[in-house]
Formats: sequence, structure tokens, C-alpha cells
Amino acid sequence: MLAEAGSDVTIWARREVVAAEIRDRHVNEGALPSVKLPKEITATSDLAAALDGSSLIAIAVPSQTLRGNLAEWAGHFAPGSTLISLMKGIELGTTKRMSQVIVETARVDADRVVVVSGPNLAPEIAAEQPAATVVAGTDPDRCRAVQQAIALPYIRPYTSEDVIGCEMGGAVKNVIALAYGMTIAMGMGDNTRASLITRGLAETARLGVALGADPLTFAGLAGLGDLVATCSSPLSRNRTFGEQLGRGRSLEEAQVAARQTAEGVKSCLAIRDLARTVGVEMPITEQVERVCHEGADPRVAVKMLMGREIKPE
Amino acid sequence: MLAEAGSDVTIWARREVVAAEIRDRHVNEGALPSVKLPKEITATSDLAAALDGSSLIAIAVPSQTLRGNLAEWAGHFAPGSTLISLMKGIELGTTKRMSQVIVETARVDADRVVVVSGPNLAPEIAAEQPAATVVAGTDPDRCRAVQQAIALPYIRPYTSEDVIGCEMGGAVKNVIALAYGMTIAMGMGDNTRASLITRGLAETARLGVALGADPLTFAGLAGLGDLVATCSSPLSRNRTFGEQLGRGRSLEEAQVAARQTAEGVKSCLAIRDLARTVGVEMPITEQVERVCHEGADPRVAVKMLMGREIKPE
Repeated sequence: MLAEAGSDVTIWARREVVAAEIRDRHVNEGALPSVKLPKEITATSDLAAALDGSSLIAIAVPSQTLRGNLAEWAGHFAPGSTLISLMKGIELGTTKRMSQVIVETARVDADRVVVVSGPNLAPEIAAEQPAATVVAGTDPDRCRAVQQAIALPYIRPYTSEDVIGCEMGGAVKNVIALAYGMTIAMGMGDNTRASLITRGLAETARLGVALGADPLTFAGLAGLGDLVATCSSPLSRNRTFGEQLGRGRSLEEAQVAARQTAEGVKSCLAIRDLARTVGVEMPITEQVERVCHEGADPRVAVKMLMGREIKPE
Repeated sequence: MLAEAGSDVTIWARREVVAAEIRDRHVNEGALPSVKLPKEITATSDLAAALDGSSLIAIAVPSQTLRGNLAEWAGHFAPGSTLISLMKGIELGTTKRMSQVIVETARVDADRVVVVSGPNLAPEIAAEQPAATVVAGTDPDRCRAVQQAIALPYIRPYTSEDVIGCEMGGAVKNVIALAYGMTIAMGMGDNTRASLITRGLAETARLGVALGADPLTFAGLAGLGDLVATCSSPLSRNRTFGEQLGRGRSLEEAQVAARQTAEGVKSCLAIRDLARTVGVEMPITEQVERVCHEGADPRVAVKMLMGREIKPE
């Protein structure tokens, strides 16, 4: 997106073989099979060369590896550069959001961090299918600069000041997608799934608001939009993993079938801990945690959710 | 739901043949094929007998026929009875919500009207799949009475004071579902569809708030929940109708194929008029109206939506 919208783009890859593949053949078969990258994009495994003079630095690594990676990178960030977080997760142990980890570890002012989040499944972006996204940050000028840098005929970026809301929406949606996958495997219909998305978003918003987010962010692209795209897509790892659990497989069996652990399996623990710390009820997250980590039966989990005391919305 | 939760239920049907089918064979083949109704339910085509002494009166007729029907019914409503609206639409010409038509035509206090709305596709409710719904009204006691009257192990009703928000969510979702159907027919993916749901809900909320609704209602079951269920279900008439339009068929051709006009086709006109009256931008509704009633090409409509000036969410 950055390259197509006119920026000079250098990708840093840890492994030179990946950098060479992008630089020479304009593909990244491991991450986006059969997608041709714009040939203006270059790539290197030389960190200092990649970061030298970069004014916009987009960071996309697995959530739990961010802190370690930053220790290596932070010294190369150009003064005043904008750090764009594309990551969705909560750090285990610290329960910190990705932008908090960046500020703390890279020792930069929070104003320099911008979060981009929304319904943005990569293969569909690569196919130039229309999508919208949110650019959130505490410095409006940096937000507008990132917005301009990714605006394309098929991408509609909106700015926001609500970093906390955007990051919480992105993190909790993985947990709700696990529950969504379970309901698919149990043969439940569109009423159940729509109720789950709605009540899942409600508990995400309750937690977000307790942490300082704007409740309306969760009705937006980085909340509702990202949640609906993730739950709807058969390509979503969290949804697929939830389907395994919904069929009655254990966590270990599901991990073998999926050949990996879905992000929501880890983050449901951190999110539950965060919710308890601030005294917020998250009944769906609690049940997902019980199914994933305490061997609870998903059918019993649904009954527990439906059997709660009736109350105002 | 009322019968299963313990109420004595009488269905009034205009045609005696339908009443007899429900009363004697416990089915309504025209409305819910192959669903067995609870045998405690009785039915009659005698209006006075049906309404005699009823404390809860649930009203479910096509939106544009409500005013005419009420002229016939209103004299039979028991004093103090609660009128439950199950209808989703805006009256053409007057641009009034269904509860407004009830209050005006039956000459009852607005406190007596309760709206029930949410992700509640009838065949799934009949199959006892878990679902949640919203019971909205200005009299909290009546809301709680209706909530209790429909609470079941598989139905979770929430109360709300926001009648306007619940009704606007139910009405505008049909228009957004038309647009959703168009994107399916045009081969667009989950990013596009999730963005459409999100921005569609945003314009619904803008209109609702201008009319006095609580913005958070649109993030709830009667907003987001109903919208997601309607867009996700292949059984949705509005979505299916939008698919016909998205394949390039004219309104007349789509009507022939669907053997009827979808509710959103009519209500997009009333909703657009309402939006203009209160000065609210509804770009998706405007484009749906152009495709339905001005012969615009859906592909051009999508380009117009994506090409608007970029701005804050």
C-alpha cells in the first residue's frame, strides 16, 4: 500500500533469503503466496541500511516477540520518525498493548506511535478489493501523514485519536473469533453467531472503556469491522482453531491439527487477567479460557452464557 | 416463545383457513414451513375473541399495512394492555417509525408500546438455537414484563429504554443488506463486506442520533446484531435481492426473479428522505437508492463510496 501510494519502501527481513526473494523476484512466498509485490519495493537483511533515514517505520512481528526485537532495532530509529504498529495482541505477563511496549522499550514519546487496524485481511488487500482502515495516534499531524501515505482508490483510511480502543479491538477479536469457530462446529445458526459478535464486542468495549478507550471506537472499523472480517473469513486462524475445539478436540489435538497455536488461545489469558485487574465482566472471554485451558466442554460453555441473569443491554 | 415461556397465547389470523391450520394441526405452512408450533397455542380469525382480555398484544404485519390494520384493531385493545411491535420499517410518505404509527393511530400512550428487535431469524428461533434480543420501551415495568414473558433457556432478552434506536436499527439494516448482497454478487471479499457493515452501521447511528437515539444502541443486538444476522443469512430477502442487482439486473428483473420487492427497496426512499430532513449524510443509503431507483451501476456506486474525501472516523 505504501509503495503503491508513492512512498519509497524498504522491507527488512531477518533472513537474507527472504530479502533476496522480495528484492529480486518481487514475491514473498512464505507470507503471501502467489502475490506479485510492486517492483519499486526493495528489501534487505541489513537493519541499519533499512532504517537509515526512514521517516515512517511500520512494525509487524508476532506480538510476543516485539519486546526482544525492539531491543535490537531501537538504536537505529531516525530522530522524529513515526513508528507504525500493525500488531494485534497483548503481551503475556505484563498485559501491555503493543504501542505501550514500543514506547517503553524504544524509549520514544507516545506521540510518535501510530496504530493501523481494521478489517484488512492481507490476501484481499493484495487483490485490491475495497477496504477501509483506521489510523490512530495521539499526534493528529502524524495520523494525517500516515493516512495520506496509504490512501488508494481501493483503501479508505480514517483517522482516530483512540489508540487504546483500536488496540483493544484488535486484541480481543481473536478471542471472540475462537468462540465463533466453536459455534460453527456446533451447528449454530446466524442468530447465535450475530449475538456472539454483538455481545463479544460489548465485553470488548467494557474492558476498553475501563482502560480509557472511547466506546464508539468499538462500533467502528478497528472494533466491529475487524471482528466481523475475522469471524467471517474461513482463512482466519482463530476461527479455524475454534472449530477444532468446537468439534470436541482438546487443545493439544487442535494444536496438532492446526500445526500452531492461535493468537487468541494465548491472549485470552492476558485479557482475562486485565479484565479482573480493572473489575470488568467478560463472560465470553472467561468461557473461551475455560474451554482452551481448563478442558471445559464448549456446549456447557454456551449454556453458561445463555443462563446468566437477564438484564438491561 | 411466549407460549413456551408460559403465557396463554392466541394467534389472530385474517384468514380462517390459516387460523384453523394453527389451531387444529399446530403448523403455519405458509409462514414457517415444517415447524411444529407448541400445541398450547390457539388461533382464531375472530378479532374481538383474540383480543378479549389480552394483556400483551404482539403486532406483526407488513410495515406499510400497519396504519390500515390498526384502524380495525384499536377499538379492541384492552385498557392498559401492552402493545409489542415486532415490525421493522419506516412508513412511506410520513417517514414515521412503527411505534409512532401505533401511538398515533391507536391513540394510546407511548408508554404502552414496547419494541422487540434483534438477530432473530424465525426458522432458527423455531429450532431453539441460542439467540439474544432487545426489549425496548419507555416504561421500565412493561419492558421487564415482556422480558420475563419471553426469557427461555435459548433466548436471552435484554431491556433498553431506546425505542428510537432499536427501530432505526431494524429499518436501516434492510438497506445495508441490499448493498451487502451487491458486494457478494460482485465477488468482493470479507474486508469489503466488513467495511460495508461497519460504515453502514455508522450512517445508521448518525441518523438515529439526529432523531434522538442513544449511539450505543447501534453497537448492540438491535443494531449490529440484527445487521450482521441479516447480512450473513442466505435466507435474507434483502441480501438475496441485492445479489440480483449486483449481477447487473434491473429492479424490474430482480423483482421478477425474487417474486417480490424487498423491504429495503421501499424503505431506502423513506430513509433517504428522513436523512435529508435532519441534514445527515448517508452515502451508502444514497447509493442503494440510486442503484434501485435510478438505474445506477453498482460498480460505479462502490467507486463513488471509496472515492469520497478521506477524513476522521
